[in-house]
Amino acid sequence: METIGYRQVEIGGGFLKELQDRNAEISVNNIYKRFDETGRFDALDHVRGGRKPHIFWDSDVAKWLESAAYILARREDGALREKVEKTVARILAGQDASGYFNSYYQVYAPEKIFTERTEHELYCAGHLIEAAVALKEAGVDEKLYFAMKKYADYIYERFYVKRDAAFTTCGHPEIELALVRLYLAGGEKKYLTLARFFLDERGKKEEYHYDWATRRYDQSHLPVREQKEAVGHAVRALYLYSAMADVARIDGDAALGEACEALYHDIVRRKMYITGGAGSSHHGEAFTFAYDLPNESAYSETCAAIALAFFCLRLARRKNRAEYHDTIERAFYNNVLAGESADGKGFFYVNPLAMDICAYAHNESLAAKQYCPLPERVEVFDCSCCPPNLTRFIESFGDYLYGKEGDVLLVNQYVTSSLLTEGVCVRVTSEMPFGGKVKIAADGALRLKLRVPAWKGGVVLRVNGKEEKPVVEEDYIEIALAAAGEISLDFCIGPRFVYADPRVRQDAGRKAVQYGALVLCGESADNAGVLAAVRIPSLEGAVRADAAPFALDVRAERPLPASSLYSYAPPAYEPFTLRLVPYYYWANRGKGDMQVWWL
Amino acid sequence: METIGYRQVEIGGGFLKELQDRNAEISVNNIYKRFDETGRFDALDHVRGGRKPHIFWDSDVAKWLESAAYILARREDGALREKVEKTVARILAGQDASGYFNSYYQVYAPEKIFTERTEHELYCAGHLIEAAVALKEAGVDEKLYFAMKKYADYIYERFYVKRDAAFTTCGHPEIELALVRLYLAGGEKKYLTLARFFLDERGKKEEYHYDWATRRYDQSHLPVREQKEAVGHAVRALYLYSAMADVARIDGDAALGEACEALYHDIVRRKMYITGGAGSSHHGEAFTFAYDLPNESAYSETCAAIALAFFCLRLARRKNRAEYHDTIERAFYNNVLAGESADGKGFFYVNPLAMDICAYAHNESLAAKQYCPLPERVEVFDCSCCPPNLTRFIESFGDYLYGKEGDVLLVNQYVTSSLLTEGVCVRVTSEMPFGGKVKIAADGALRLKLRVPAWKGGVVLRVNGKEEKPVVEEDYIEIALAAAGEISLDFCIGPRFVYADPRVRQDAGRKAVQYGALVLCGESADNAGVLAAVRIPSLEGAVRADAAPFALDVRAERPLPASSLYSYAPPAYEPFTLRLVPYYYWANRGKGDMQVWWL
Repeated sequence: METIGYRQVEIGGGFLKELQDRNAEISVNNIYKRFDETGRFDALDHVRGGRKPHIFWDSDVAKWLESAAYILARREDGALREKVEKTVARILAGQDASGYFNSYYQVYAPEKIFTERTEHELYCAGHLIEAAVALKEAGVDEKLYFAMKKYADYIYERFYVKRDAAFTTCGHPEIELALVRLYLAGGEKKYLTLARFFLDERGKKEEYHYDWATRRYDQSHLPVREQKEAVGHAVRALYLYSAMADVARIDGDAALGEACEALYHDIVRRKMYITGGAGSSHHGEAFTFAYDLPNESAYSETCAAIALAFFCLRLARRKNRAEYHDTIERAFYNNVLAGESADGKGFFYVNPLAMDICAYAHNESLAAKQYCPLPERVEVFDCSCCPPNLTRFIESFGDYLYGKEGDVLLVNQYVTSSLLTEGVCVRVTSEMPFGGKVKIAADGALRLKLRVPAWKGGVVLRVNGKEEKPVVEEDYIEIALAAAGEISLDFCIGPRFVYADPRVRQDAGRKAVQYGALVLCGESADNAGVLAAVRIPSLEGAVRADAAPFALDVRAERPLPASSLYSYAPPAYEPFTLRLVPYYYWANRGKGDMQVWWL
Repeated sequence: METIGYRQVEIGGGFLKELQDRNAEISVNNIYKRFDETGRFDALDHVRGGRKPHIFWDSDVAKWLESAAYILARREDGALREKVEKTVARILAGQDASGYFNSYYQVYAPEKIFTERTEHELYCAGHLIEAAVALKEAGVDEKLYFAMKKYADYIYERFYVKRDAAFTTCGHPEIELALVRLYLAGGEKKYLTLARFFLDERGKKEEYHYDWATRRYDQSHLPVREQKEAVGHAVRALYLYSAMADVARIDGDAALGEACEALYHDIVRRKMYITGGAGSSHHGEAFTFAYDLPNESAYSETCAAIALAFFCLRLARRKNRAEYHDTIERAFYNNVLAGESADGKGFFYVNPLAMDICAYAHNESLAAKQYCPLPERVEVFDCSCCPPNLTRFIESFGDYLYGKEGDVLLVNQYVTSSLLTEGVCVRVTSEMPFGGKVKIAADGALRLKLRVPAWKGGVVLRVNGKEEKPVVEEDYIEIALAAAGEISLDFCIGPRFVYADPRVRQDAGRKAVQYGALVLCGESADNAGVLAAVRIPSLEGAVRADAAPFALDVRAERPLPASSLYSYAPPAYEPFTLRLVPYYYWANRGKGDMQVWWL
């Protein structure tokens, strides 16, 4: 499948438009302000004396730039453009004659350049390259593009030609996918060669003097084509797998492609939260073992869910399957969006699936140590990778909606939007994620494949007002409009119980409630009592409540406190109305308990 | 209630006898061997050059001595006596002229004596005093008693008279209850005065330069009479509360007594595992908050359950209630006994209520760091407080069986044993913990109060073969034998479901199976499948299996693996026979999963 880029898609209204407007009007500016206050932009000037930059800081700035590029591609914003230009100028001024750029190493450890594998040097370079490509493609700026090409050339020279760097692969993957992106933007094969080189060298060389656990942590435990189980730090893993999927597609590398599919299956069949979260443990922000998905202590980093979407889109480009888009949808509407507060200012780094406010209060110091301020979102982290990752992802979500197979238009995500394809203007209007109705209007003849979401209970298809029996092939409805016309789809949406594989011991005996793609949760803001012990015998009688953004009232039962800690009689329950809201909306109304899995 | 000491009680056979024989023949000798190999005894010689002693080591030796004292009180063992004598001689030789003794401070930091509040100096002193009293009362040795009295006099001088030590109360309580024991052994009031002084000073002085969390950790956050919630390190807490209960009784100190009762209720109504475990968190080996009882990550240190029994017995001495003995019974037959392997050689420091072998394998390094080698018991720990605590507790469990109120004999624990009271010889034969039948024979007239265990479903009482309706007053059957005769009790025993208060979120929707006082568990050694997802719809048809020490076969259902990680259909279950064994017996048959709470 060929994808259709965000620049060809206009988001005309609806849910994504609201997210993008909040993003452009609040989040991106607020992140800029916070990054500025903390010295992240000043660090670009390479002047000693300010706050010593964190080794990640260049990547924070780069992801902010990338977000701004996407925004400026769709709307003019003079103030934002000025910030971008100023930031680009600072980077250009600081760049070494060799092409090298790093705000930490150039100022504080120039003698250590390209000697410290684990210190994110090429990770920062990768994000700068991504930002440069995004700015060029958005028509905002080309200076950074040429500057970062020069940097990439320098990396090519040192790592591939001379091979005189003290390490071969970076401890945090990112450069690999960035180099593919640079190759795709300009067609220069050397960048693809370098990306492939980094992949090929990973887990092969005897350069690793660190232990097995560390090698698993950054996916250097095996050559990439032999990696079949998702291990280690989840963001590192998914950035690496994304580059693997890119190169597998471009090179037609079957062994690499098979590794990617095995890794994908290991994640979605054994290691993914119902919210699309990946990496269940705080220890190493990592994947653990099959079916280990603790709810209260879930790590489930916002960046990992975003990276899972990156990986899925690249898998779909290589060989499309509807399930990749199901996974993107799951991650986007649940784990990813939970990463940001409703006001667009606060962010979560980690996204647990249960919150007990007492447990949090008891473990406050521990939680803070792990970069995971809970239970309320905060405006900036020391390691602030998630906020600008989220903004760049929301702004570029247009990339995820459509694809092409020859002259057939694939609709993978139903988002209100329009695009021009094969000379035909297509307009999509969608109620998702809160409703199941979709309209697709085309002003000319068009062949279409419309994804049937995994959550649907049934679908009613109408072509020009007339009901037709859908022809479903591999979870796509195949349809052809002979001329201008309108297709309407009504995916049967409603609350449904979802059960985890019983090998997930943390969810055994429990069920979640999903409404379309939305995983719902209950919060103590709406519900008194011990949420963890609430029973939902049935979803009959569940009704949508008049509360923004969405709420569902469900007949449930909550326990009465027992008279002693241990009793021979089961606890007494009373009926009550449990209000459920989208998981992504949790923690917007003060500190409180939250629950996803119910008895 | 006045208690009857272990020296007046002969354990003639049955379950406790087996435990004590294993203790005397294997455990105590094996612990000696391990302590010897690791240099704990050599350290007593105060010669530099050997392995530097851990600051706790004197207490390990002291608890071993105390265990040996109880054994030698009931059976001659020349080799053991020789080891005791040699050890006592080494301590005497190392004692300073002032009376001071500490294998770490005298050799490695003499300038720091009585300057480091948190370094267990008085804790070690307390255990040495307990050992000395035990050896004297057992008729084994008086030399250590007089030596430790001299040490106590020196502590009195420095801490109470001159007050020139750099701290007032020890970071690890123990000295307080040891001083009470020394007072009770010899009647010298100064030791009681000093114990009371240490209690009175705790949490009052402005000597604490450390933070609030640390003060809670060692129960110095409030004056003891104001402490109503169990907080901090569970063993520290329960040693302190034990001394508080002692002093409350002896002094008739109502405020102190009320604090003790509040603390007891906070534990048994909100913070105690069904196994009698206390201190649910690895972080600080501590109590957390009400109803927070995680199973897999339970800390539940063996020493804490033992210390809970110490506290309960002292509460009962102050003002008897049957429930204190229920708690002792719960802790003894479950958490405490789980601390030791069936062969008497291996020990658990921590006692989780669920084991997932994959989770353990994944977190091996973490587990080892916390002194908690799981999932198999080991022979010695670096910090080896639990093994000799367990042996001294098992050997002195005779203390917990009987009490007196005037001329009335209280039977608090039904253990096969005999004693002479009021000129009458009483013989008890009991099936507990595996059966509910008890016989009590007396060779003369006697008034009795027989505890009705909380777990009983009913009781049949026969006096001299004739069934009588029991007169139950505050959970004791009151009965008088006019002359020699026999009472038989048949407490209806059988498997019963037990439900936790639904505020215990980790047990919500689940139930445990108890058989008399025994909490049962299932292990993968007997049962294939995902134990955490097993359902027990009913206990009808449960049958005792012919397996040592005890097994129960229960009709249950286990899930079949699902075809995908998340499904709209609930998991399919198949019926099977679940074998349950006593919780205390778990992890005796290799590494495997274990579960206490069932769906």
